[in-house]
Amino acid sequence: MNRVKKYFIKFLPSNKSITIDPNYNLRQAILDCGLDIDSSCGGAGTCGRCVVQIIEGTVETKDFPKFISKKEKENGFVLSCQARVKSDLVVYVPERVKQKGKIEKGELGERPSKIYAGISKREFSSIEVKPWIVKEWLKVEKPSFSYGTSDLFRLQKAIKESLGIEDCVVPIHIMRILPNVLREKNWTVTVTVDKWNRTLIDIQAGEVDRKCYGIAIDIGTTTLVLYLVDLENGDILSVASEYNPQIKFGEDIINRIVYSTRKEGLNKLREVVVDCLNSLIWNLLLDSGVDPDSIVSVVVAGNSTMMHLFYGVPPRYIREEPYVTVANRFPNSTAEEVGIKHIRNAMVYSMKGVASYLGSDITSGVLATDMACQKELTLFLDLGTNGELVVGNSEWMMGCSCSAGPAFEGGGVKCGIRAVDGAIEKVWIDEETYKCEVEVIGGGKPRGICGSGLIDIIGEMYLKGVIDRKGKFNRDIGNRYLECVDGDLRYIIVDARDSATGKSIFISEVDINNLMRAKAAIYAGIKTLLEEVDLNVYDLDRIYIAGGLGKHLNIRNAIVIGMLPDIDISKYHFLGNTSVTGAYLSLLSEEKYKKSLEIANKITYIELSVNMKFMDRYVAGLFLPYTDLKDFPTVEELIYSMNNLRGRDRR
Amino acid sequence: MNRVKKYFIKFLPSNKSITIDPNYNLRQAILDCGLDIDSSCGGAGTCGRCVVQIIEGTVETKDFPKFISKKEKENGFVLSCQARVKSDLVVYVPERVKQKGKIEKGELGERPSKIYAGISKREFSSIEVKPWIVKEWLKVEKPSFSYGTSDLFRLQKAIKESLGIEDCVVPIHIMRILPNVLREKNWTVTVTVDKWNRTLIDIQAGEVDRKCYGIAIDIGTTTLVLYLVDLENGDILSVASEYNPQIKFGEDIINRIVYSTRKEGLNKLREVVVDCLNSLIWNLLLDSGVDPDSIVSVVVAGNSTMMHLFYGVPPRYIREEPYVTVANRFPNSTAEEVGIKHIRNAMVYSMKGVASYLGSDITSGVLATDMACQKELTLFLDLGTNGELVVGNSEWMMGCSCSAGPAFEGGGVKCGIRAVDGAIEKVWIDEETYKCEVEVIGGGKPRGICGSGLIDIIGEMYLKGVIDRKGKFNRDIGNRYLECVDGDLRYIIVDARDSATGKSIFISEVDINNLMRAKAAIYAGIKTLLEEVDLNVYDLDRIYIAGGLGKHLNIRNAIVIGMLPDIDISKYHFLGNTSVTGAYLSLLSEEKYKKSLEIANKITYIELSVNMKFMDRYVAGLFLPYTDLKDFPTVEELIYSMNNLRGRDRR
Repeated sequence: MNRVKKYFIKFLPSNKSITIDPNYNLRQAILDCGLDIDSSCGGAGTCGRCVVQIIEGTVETKDFPKFISKKEKENGFVLSCQARVKSDLVVYVPERVKQKGKIEKGELGERPSKIYAGISKREFSSIEVKPWIVKEWLKVEKPSFSYGTSDLFRLQKAIKESLGIEDCVVPIHIMRILPNVLREKNWTVTVTVDKWNRTLIDIQAGEVDRKCYGIAIDIGTTTLVLYLVDLENGDILSVASEYNPQIKFGEDIINRIVYSTRKEGLNKLREVVVDCLNSLIWNLLLDSGVDPDSIVSVVVAGNSTMMHLFYGVPPRYIREEPYVTVANRFPNSTAEEVGIKHIRNAMVYSMKGVASYLGSDITSGVLATDMACQKELTLFLDLGTNGELVVGNSEWMMGCSCSAGPAFEGGGVKCGIRAVDGAIEKVWIDEETYKCEVEVIGGGKPRGICGSGLIDIIGEMYLKGVIDRKGKFNRDIGNRYLECVDGDLRYIIVDARDSATGKSIFISEVDINNLMRAKAAIYAGIKTLLEEVDLNVYDLDRIYIAGGLGKHLNIRNAIVIGMLPDIDISKYHFLGNTSVTGAYLSLLSEEKYKKSLEIANKITYIELSVNMKFMDRYVAGLFLPYTDLKDFPTVEELIYSMNNLRGRDRR
Repeated sequence: MNRVKKYFIKFLPSNKSITIDPNYNLRQAILDCGLDIDSSCGGAGTCGRCVVQIIEGTVETKDFPKFISKKEKENGFVLSCQARVKSDLVVYVPERVKQKGKIEKGELGERPSKIYAGISKREFSSIEVKPWIVKEWLKVEKPSFSYGTSDLFRLQKAIKESLGIEDCVVPIHIMRILPNVLREKNWTVTVTVDKWNRTLIDIQAGEVDRKCYGIAIDIGTTTLVLYLVDLENGDILSVASEYNPQIKFGEDIINRIVYSTRKEGLNKLREVVVDCLNSLIWNLLLDSGVDPDSIVSVVVAGNSTMMHLFYGVPPRYIREEPYVTVANRFPNSTAEEVGIKHIRNAMVYSMKGVASYLGSDITSGVLATDMACQKELTLFLDLGTNGELVVGNSEWMMGCSCSAGPAFEGGGVKCGIRAVDGAIEKVWIDEETYKCEVEVIGGGKPRGICGSGLIDIIGEMYLKGVIDRKGKFNRDIGNRYLECVDGDLRYIIVDARDSATGKSIFISEVDINNLMRAKAAIYAGIKTLLEEVDLNVYDLDRIYIAGGLGKHLNIRNAIVIGMLPDIDISKYHFLGNTSVTGAYLSLLSEEKYKKSLEIANKITYIELSVNMKFMDRYVAGLFLPYTDLKDFPTVEELIYSMNNLRGRDRR
């Protein structure tokens, strides 16, 4: 018989199953089945995280000794992204570490006085809360034989008299209910009007509650954050956040763009993020008790790729030279048009980005810092997978993105993880014993080390003489925490018996190398931007640091390793998630939103990937702290004095 | 057992069946089943057209001797709208006279030179064909590292350079295909742009055919008419028309408004008309071979009720004092938004009306006549169920509607039918024998008499002395065609043996009375409008007659009965369907469409139903031709000379 063979796969412990064609990719089958699997490389076979165990049946795969030991291989462990199905299977898919709820409400749900980034409460209170969507009570004139104009005309007249809006657009779905709503409470209505777009968004009979609420959304590559906001006074009533569920299709932007080019890939990416936003919105509603119909507007910020995916627009050319977006701002839409449920009356507005790698999250952040309105020279730094920088003041602004790589988010570093519970966020090295002391997020035994911990360990190793300026281990010092595995030198941060995984947590020379590339890129970016306008780091009046990394960052160590400029530490300020703050401010004020559009238009974007000066400075940054120590005078001094100290002690 | 009883009805000859609750209305059950049944009164029990025969089972009903004889009753005939189901039934539903295809293509599908109403070809050719939707070939700049703007920005720039449109709006569904379309043919695209609304409607890769087509639609209470138009040169490529399928829910506007207030009534009315338009559009496409994607715009005209129903907006208050519309113009919509299929790229625009009973069909007609641009004083008269009038010139315009009643469309007259095959359209009476000679639409035996025939018969009867000035039969003259049935005098126009129905075709005193009311309303409307501005009928430079009635109308007889002013016949012009012509002109020219909006705003509407002067003139019009014969000097003269003639002959 010529029947096409199909294979049946059963997954444990979920007991889910799927029927697929021969040679189908095993990781894809897991995803198709709706199961979650860690895979920061998006299936390229380079991160080694999608290991599963074949209980029964056969797959075709290669050896990956880097990720799977010989013994593990014998026990059926395979890299699922590199395995092709050759028979019916029973597969054990290890449950992914649950990441839900790790983002604490307290960290995000701060009141405006704090979250208006870097700005004091006094300054915040000067913001005029004046959103462009308003609710108003209207008394519409009754028709009569002597005034027999249409309902629409009389409504438009009342809107003009009350709100000063000429020829307010009334969409067809409102026209369909208009006559009954007008007559229900004797020609008294409550209208919701988008003043900016001169459009009627909703109409209700009678004088109903005029409370309006809005939702500010930041769609991060890693995290989604939502604020539910009272548009009358700016109060944040509820906060919700969740890891971006697109992570299962690839941990970083590039892997998601690759996934989006597959058949139905873009739709899938869009669906999962929209579904997740819908459930977060539902949580906001439950938590706050706010009537869904009184939510009138949503402002969305995110990097260019996330925005493309949210709006269902192909992000493919963000990744292909010369790296252009389809759009930097997306059309004003109804909630329905973008798939947002529960809040049928809301309009959705997008913040505007600058370029493929300088998205609306950055514009939003710049808005939040208020730097575009001030004379002082400010450097704004968003530290995530990419380091994005904007430097300038009320006169001019320049921005760039330096692909720092995922090292600071735990990628490309063997024991690296994101800043979640169990992550080492701070490290100290005992100068005598070289033993590490660590601080773990959430307390308890550590599972790995996150960005701020990595910066600490590099800085500490350098200061304590464990590594040299090139990032190589100093084999001369007796160090019982240094070990060699397969020719790769490792420094043990936490012993196997003290870790949550039962394996030691370490940092290798390869890891150090990746981290040095990342820090070099950021510093080179800062230098390049400043030198474009004949300035240097000492001209900076302040440095704002946004993004997840900033929260636990030890600035001193970041300077020691040459990632951040060696200037007065008091000039540094941590701001947290400025993307959602900017969206929040825009929700509250038409003026602020318009300012953000102005900011996006004003920032001159420098493409570093083709900038030779950047390349030179990047290479110069592959030393600790930098090739030319004159750039880091306090570090030079520190090292000198510590060496002296060590010399004296040993003497 | 407490089960709720249900009854099963089977309809013959269709063999369709339905299960309904006890006491359900039988006519409604027929409609629910998707069957067609004649019912011009919409189920009020007053037209007597929805008679069916109960073959088996029981219904509860009253006697309607006016419509059903005792013998018919014994044979199971009932008025279905007045019958409540009391058991399972078998019901014979007489097949409705098929009305499809009665509207001949030739009558509607005339070329612009003719259909540009009342205007010569020379004048028509002076119209600049300049629609507001255009297709243009564009070369979009390629992105580069030195010019890394978004695809959207570069597209907007190209549109601006080529079409002069700043910040052209690109909707999200186009943004989703934009990057691929731009790159498919090396940055060459064909865009379809709505210049007026500054919106991109479509984009295709490469330099494709720039042909654009549009569809002009007139939604009449009785008839739907569509033109498929080449937007480059104004050629009408195909014409389609059909009776408005809403007729089965009520023949006139009032009955449809009543039906719309029922549960799901509005939706049903909307659905049937949209479905019918979709099938007509499909026919246009098949007939012309035009690519559906190249149809870019649709312009719709119709009376206010038809427009409300088409857009799904409740028309209820059109019928309730003080008679106001929800809107006189509906929002620009995509074809999808209003339910139009097949032509996914088209935008739908509505003509603008003036008031509840002076709709966009009249504005469209006024546009078609060009009277708003001329100095001559013109009376525009649309004769249908309502007579709508507009009088004026380039300086001013006034309009009104006089509820002529459905008499001229065959309603309220026992043997009246619409102007379809089998309708008597012209009548002459032999002065000696009083026998009628008739002309039948489509030839063959007559089935009834339509509007123009009714005007002829009244005029002839009056001129030949069969009726007096009050419309009463002159019993003094020997007349073998006069007979009395149940106390109602009838004049036999066609003997039973010469008619298609096997019954005689006659006109009764009651019929004459209804017709005199209708003609009185029209003339009173004309007088009232003119006198509002201190003018009289002799000041009129011309009279344009639009609407179905006009086509076969004998102007002389219309003057004789006092319906139309007694002025020089050469001032009268028949125009046919001016509503579709106006929509057609608007399709072709932004300037014309804007002119039509101006016309709608300019026409001063006079509400006659509360106008005492109108009432006086209406009452004065209940004579033939009018109370004061001085208004109709040529008729007075004619009657005088005919009486003399008769006197002489008899002498």
